[in-house]
Amino acid sequence: MATGTVYLVGAGPGDPDLLALKAARILREADIVLHDELVSPEILRLIPASAQLVSIGKRCGKKSTPQEEINRLLIDYARLGLQVVRLKGGDPFIFGRGGEEMESLRLAGISVEVVPGITAALGAAAGIQVPLTHRDVSSTLILVVYMPGHDLAGLQQRLLSSGVLPQTPCAIISSATSEAEQVHLTVVGSLATSPFLAAPRLLVVGEVVRFAEPNRLQQHFSELTFSTASDDVSPRESVE
Amino acid sequence: MATGTVYLVGAGPGDPDLLALKAARILREADIVLHDELVSPEILRLIPASAQLVSIGKRCGKKSTPQEEINRLLIDYARLGLQVVRLKGGDPFIFGRGGEEMESLRLAGISVEVVPGITAALGAAAGIQVPLTHRDVSSTLILVVYMPGHDLAGLQQRLLSSGVLPQTPCAIISSATSEAEQVHLTVVGSLATSPFLAAPRLLVVGEVVRFAEPNRLQQHFSELTFSTASDDVSPRESVE
Repeated sequence: MATGTVYLVGAGPGDPDLLALKAARILREADIVLHDELVSPEILRLIPASAQLVSIGKRCGKKSTPQEEINRLLIDYARLGLQVVRLKGGDPFIFGRGGEEMESLRLAGISVEVVPGITAALGAAAGIQVPLTHRDVSSTLILVVYMPGHDLAGLQQRLLSSGVLPQTPCAIISSATSEAEQVHLTVVGSLATSPFLAAPRLLVVGEVVRFAEPNRLQQHFSELTFSTASDDVSPRESVE
Repeated sequence: MATGTVYLVGAGPGDPDLLALKAARILREADIVLHDELVSPEILRLIPASAQLVSIGKRCGKKSTPQEEINRLLIDYARLGLQVVRLKGGDPFIFGRGGEEMESLRLAGISVEVVPGITAALGAAAGIQVPLTHRDVSSTLILVVYMPGHDLAGLQQRLLSSGVLPQTPCAIISSATSEAEQVHLTVVGSLATSPFLAAPRLLVVGEVVRFAEPNRLQQHFSELTFSTASDDVSPRESVE
């Protein structure tokens, strides 16, 4: 029996339409898909019924599969001759322990193929139309915090302590580009009082957040969080 | 006549198979595609013959289209009722002046849609199997320099001056993930004597470069540059 290949595949930010052509094809041909909790339900629905679906997520302190066991599962399934997909939210090489899985598979002599994905930050930026680089504001700070956690007060404090001004605009984006996407625009000084948005979340900090397009938000997101407190950021177009 | 929409589309790193499903569909339906020089020939070949193809690249001091004219062209074509695609290498919001084009279109009242792409850095990293984040080496420096330019001696000097150690591994990747891809692995202290690789290029600096898989390189790239000087980096697997 020939040993199968393991594909470390980036699922992108959430919208199935943002999967790479190659990722979509590999998913259609998979025998088994091991996915983490960051992969959106819309993308999981694309996987054919003939493929076995295994959730090995770890999030919010819930029970999860230890990394050593994930590595062993990937090797075992490949040795059964299966075409194995390890499906990760965003890109497999950004905060996904893809490097460790790749190394373990290589040491076991299993063929590995890596399919990059659109990272959540870029997906979210495109979705709300916030350019992460812009000539006019290029000298100002841009920070992207993946999975900022629940302690927004602590995060606000750390940002202010490291010299970020309280009036710097920022956006908390939950489930970027997926049907469940929510966006909250605020400023660093008001981060602590931001509403709780469900994981996966990311935080974009910087003047570029002023480019976020409110019509775009209303048009595209099923539920819109857009705070209107006086110290919050105004989209550039509505500032005279 | 209804005004058309302008799609700011990321072409990804070069391999047409790494286009997002949405990007591929929008390209198939385009009336006119304005692309820069960073878009690979393989991707340009996907565009249907019915669509007009306009090159507005600027590179290496060649004659190029001023940004104001690009903005005007996008507006004019949309007002003719055309479905206009502005196709950019990688992601449209990373170093692509996508933000400026979006702003100009918004001010003209033209509908804009942004389709993110896989950035060249992540495409290249997946292609040569170098994880950009890795738990074991996470405390070490990782730098990605987009379009490092011709002055590698100057770049080497700047890296060393800012405290990067000369033995730090680095990879110069030309035309990442495309048929023309070339990779040169070396260390920062030998960057100045690296061979000339054609643009578009990027440079990845950091211990993670040790993960690059030489078999993978040989298998996938039409021409392999892999320097063997004694001070150059060795792939991790071949180090006992």
